[in-house]
Amino acid sequence: MIASQMNMSTRPTVGFIGLGNMGSHMARNLLASSHPLVVYDLFPESVSALVEEGAVAALNPADLADRSEVIITMLPSTSNVQEVYKGENGVLQSLKKGTKIIDSSTIDPSVPPTLAQEAKERGAALFVDAPVSGGVPAARQGTLSFMVGGTEPEFQQVKELLQFMGKNVFHCGKVGSGQATKICNNMLLAVSMIGTSETMNLGMRLGLDPKVLANVLNVSTGRCWSSELYNPVPGVVDGVPSSNKYDGGFGTALMTKDLGLAQDASTRTFSPTPLGSTAHQIYRLLCQKGLDKKDFSVVFQFLSDANTQLK
Amino acid sequence: MIASQMNMSTRPTVGFIGLGNMGSHMARNLLASSHPLVVYDLFPESVSALVEEGAVAALNPADLADRSEVIITMLPSTSNVQEVYKGENGVLQSLKKGTKIIDSSTIDPSVPPTLAQEAKERGAALFVDAPVSGGVPAARQGTLSFMVGGTEPEFQQVKELLQFMGKNVFHCGKVGSGQATKICNNMLLAVSMIGTSETMNLGMRLGLDPKVLANVLNVSTGRCWSSELYNPVPGVVDGVPSSNKYDGGFGTALMTKDLGLAQDASTRTFSPTPLGSTAHQIYRLLCQKGLDKKDFSVVFQFLSDANTQLK
Amino acid sequence: MIASQMNMSTRPTVGFIGLGNMGSHMARNLLASSHPLVVYDLFPESVSALVEEGAVAALNPADLADRSEVIITMLPSTSNVQEVYKGENGVLQSLKKGTKIIDSSTIDPSVPPTLAQEAKERGAALFVDAPVSGGVPAARQGTLSFMVGGTEPEFQQVKELLQFMGKNVFHCGKVGSGQATKICNNMLLAVSMIGTSETMNLGMRLGLDPKVLANVLNVSTGRCWSSELYNPVPGVVDGVPSSNKYDGGFGTALMTKDLGLAQDASTRTFSPTPLGSTAHQIYRLLCQKGLDKKDFSVVFQFLSDANTQLK
Amino acid sequence: MIASQMNMSTRPTVGFIGLGNMGSHMARNLLASSHPLVVYDLFPESVSALVEEGAVAALNPADLADRSEVIITMLPSTSNVQEVYKGENGVLQSLKKGTKIIDSSTIDPSVPPTLAQEAKERGAALFVDAPVSGGVPAARQGTLSFMVGGTEPEFQQVKELLQFMGKNVFHCGKVGSGQATKICNNMLLAVSMIGTSETMNLGMRLGLDPKVLANVLNVSTGRCWSSELYNPVPGVVDGVPSSNKYDGGFGTALMTKDLGLAQDASTRTFSPTPLGSTAHQIYRLLCQKGLDKKDFSVVFQFLSDANTQLK
Repeated sequence: MIASQMNMSTRPTVGFIGLGNMGSHMARNLLASSHPLVVYDLFPESVSALVEEGAVAALNPADLADRSEVIITMLPSTSNVQEVYKGENGVLQSLKKGTKIIDSSTIDPSVPPTLAQEAKERGAALFVDAPVSGGVPAARQGTLSFMVGGTEPEFQQVKELLQFMGKNVFHCGKVGSGQATKICNNMLLAVSMIGTSETMNLGMRLGLDPKVLANVLNVSTGRCWSSELYNPVPGVVDGVPSSNKYDGGFGTALMTKDLGLAQDASTRTFSPTPLGSTAHQIYRLLCQKGLDKKDFSVVFQFLSDANTQLK
Repeated sequence: MIASQMNMSTRPTVGFIGLGNMGSHMARNLLASSHPLVVYDLFPESVSALVEEGAVAALNPADLADRSEVIITMLPSTSNVQEVYKGENGVLQSLKKGTKIIDSSTIDPSVPPTLAQEAKERGAALFVDAPVSGGVPAARQGTLSFMVGGTEPEFQQVKELLQFMGKNVFHCGKVGSGQATKICNNMLLAVSMIGTSETMNLGMRLGLDPKVLANVLNVSTGRCWSSELYNPVPGVVDGVPSSNKYDGGFGTALMTKDLGLAQDASTRTFSPTPLGSTAHQIYRLLCQKGLDKKDFSVVFQFLSDANTQLK
Repeated sequence: MIASQMNMSTRPTVGFIGLGNMGSHMARNLLASSHPLVVYDLFPESVSALVEEGAVAALNPADLADRSEVIITMLPSTSNVQEVYKGENGVLQSLKKGTKIIDSSTIDPSVPPTLAQEAKERGAALFVDAPVSGGVPAARQGTLSFMVGGTEPEFQQVKELLQFMGKNVFHCGKVGSGQATKICNNMLLAVSMIGTSETMNLGMRLGLDPKVLANVLNVSTGRCWSSELYNPVPGVVDGVPSSNKYDGGFGTALMTKDLGLAQDASTRTFSPTPLGSTAHQIYRLLCQKGLDKKDFSVVFQFLSDANTQLK
Repeated sequence: MIASQMNMSTRPTVGFIGLGNMGSHMARNLLASSHPLVVYDLFPESVSALVEEGAVAALNPADLADRSEVIITMLPSTSNVQEVYKGENGVLQSLKKGTKIIDSSTIDPSVPPTLAQEAKERGAALFVDAPVSGGVPAARQGTLSFMVGGTEPEFQQVKELLQFMGKNVFHCGKVGSGQATKICNNMLLAVSMIGTSETMNLGMRLGLDPKVLANVLNVSTGRCWSSELYNPVPGVVDGVPSSNKYDGGFGTALMTKDLGLAQDASTRTFSPTPLGSTAHQIYRLLCQKGLDKKDFSVVFQFLSDANTQLK
């Protein structure tokens, strides 16, 4: 008991910026594991919810930096990250020497290396990128996957803390590699989800039973995560968004954003991505047709369903 | 011993038409399991090889039909199948009453229902379509997968025989469903192979180690058969074509053919397949550029390698 | 006067099969130019309308062939054409020696050569394929374009007759070339219409005035028929379907059918058509979303309009 | 004579930055029309060539700005433009009050509005974007097209000067509209060039004569600039790159760059561009296969020619 308390007392003070759907759950898991927590968000109600649970509110990112040993950011876009670190009253303005910084936002992979260098010049002990996968349910349950970019010693220094919020913590390579890995994974995910949707629809129109088709695919060479664990046809797999009117899960708008980052990276590196770019366009079209808040497996319905007719 | 011999003596005489790379191995496995075997092929040398091992040569498909209790066909195209069954000296001309017919060719899924009806009118006990997957190595080792289309009783009547040539025998639905399932699987396979190739190439150009990237993908949502067991990047998975100059495996020309069948079926059923059709075009381009005999994972090299330059 | 009457009396008796939207106008223009006319269609009401205007009804295609010197067919699909010529009571059953045959249907370009040979074996003087473009308005006004496939002498023998129904009569090459040319033209048309729609939408979202943008495109390298004469943005060009709620014009379902023929031909000739196949998929999706009867320029609305939301 | 000299003496001193293939011809046309000319480029040899013809060399962009009444920039990328204007010794550092600025580079359309505002705050009379089309031959002959973004009065103030270098000067809308119009035009151009290439190749494989096919297309609905004036099939149109081994013309690498800008703009405005993005990927692949310096019509050869095989 006492040892444990002492252990707890040695836990670092964490500053957490970005209390959206994902971030508030992540922050709560840090509180639950007895980390002193300082929080900041543009929305006061997000802050007060966590303050009621024991967190301390910071005035702004600089104020938060001044009070934290570790800083975690979980923000919606590249420009938000730039602003929170480098803007007025930004984190870098009052960074304490030796601070460890973890950016869990999903952003352009070319940004973390520059940010890391600037943070270290201002005294940071380390800066890693550590975007997540698993969505809101995994954030709540503390079972996220983290894809970490940094040196091996940096990875070792943040791994334990990330395990309070996630189950799998992967070391992907040098700083920026977490972002690169995430957009690679999500591009392949989008391609295989659309491919699965096209395939299931074609098979059903050829008279196949969707469960029988899925069963064969899943022990054959067409097998993928989307066919096996997250099949987009309602009724094939229990408990996934396709069996719940495509609610919950990983939103089409977020997938579209990640595919945009993948396309930016493809253009910058001259990498041909014919299917990745077509997948991007298809998801953009889904967003435009009002499906942006549905799970990304709704592409099956978009491709198959004549009842979702245009007016 | 004697019981076993008696068992063997009850094995049906099988007529096998189509002794190409795949068919000759399949026929050989039937011989090895003591099936009396009658064979036919347009190429005499293919026939003589099997005759030396104990098979009997037929003069033509009609002659073969006259001597067989079960007929298996393994032919390269829809028109070959039509010719062998319905042409001059075709199987249907001298079909014995009660013959069981198994077509293991990969053809247009709209053809088997008609053929089945005609065969039954001529006295066949059953006609199932049973295309295979697994390629030449699985044909040799007797570990093919069969995707069978027919009624449940028909499936039960052919299952045992197919198990002498394969490991997995799937019942996919009514006649034609084997073909439908196969082209569905291969369309999804092509999409995920190209998707994996684009993803691996993008990741490597972003500075990721291909083995590390594959490791993360394979425990994440981007996971698919192509990333996990047949990774197209040389050196990531041992013993697959990508680690052997893309030799062996499943040829690009065959994949292109199957994608053509999938597109025909998509057009006939008005099924939108944006990624499936783009995959078809990409593989067609590979064929044109002289990669038709390479394994279909060579698409990674096509997309990534500046050294495979056009003149 | 008398000379003219004599001229008229020398006009050949034309048998016309297929009195749909297009065919009935074409037949009417032949009547108006004093051709004795025999007609056949599956729908009796289409026949009676023309009979009231002076045509004679045939019992079936064979009966029509028996009474005609020239036969024109205008049918919706390849299988309809096969049936009308080669089916029971088909044209070829009672063809008179010396009959000239013109098939104006849009069908698979591999079919006319075979049909032509069979027709000639049965005594036909010639068989040309002559699909049209221009749509219903041009059919009514007698300003269609005909794309004719046949020998030069055959072309010369049908040219005059076709000019009673059309303004431009092109000789495209040997039999089948009319079909080949038509599907080539329509594939390029679909690609440039979708390209124009994407471009106009992108420009408008970047703040450009659509009329100004169209004006610049139309004197620049992006210029195409779709941008210049048939702009898909409402209000840019007067009197086209986009300025009339996308009603009238060339239906999306027909374009989708022609793109399917182009894809069949591409697959048969191993021709890479990455944009042509994607255009096919996009138009198929439009059909599925209930836009099949709208003019094919409605793809602009499909790509741009958030109000045509899915439910 | 004297009047003319006086006229000439009133011509403004122009500072020209960026003396590449295009820029050096444009600058030469200004010299030829008696404009006092100050020049700057990173490559001293480009500068000396023009100095020999009468231009004055500036030390850097700031020095050039100090000596010029009008400044024209013609640079290869968005970052070059940012550097030349806002970098150390950049144009904005020593801008004279009342200077007129014309940026003829092809860059991201979101950049000119910001640059214009900053330039005006530093005293510029106007800042317009005015990218060009027509390529090196038009630059040499002074027949470029300029697509100008700015207010109507600003357009009027630069029009006359631009006419010394070009034939068509279009007013496309507010600042940034020149860039937007250019990338729209080039996206549509790429789509129709690839579409034309696919179509010509398909037609030829179906047995059509390419000249006959082009003739029909060019009076039909498939007509576009690429089919009519710049046909990618060797021998169809005289004097274009396809009839000259695809040398000269508009390079594939430049087209790929412009398609990248179009994709950036599409992503930023959420505009679906399925064909535009596929065109981008196809041109990227051409670059990778060593065709980057060939005219962009070489896509016909890429799609059609088995002799340009991969090794």
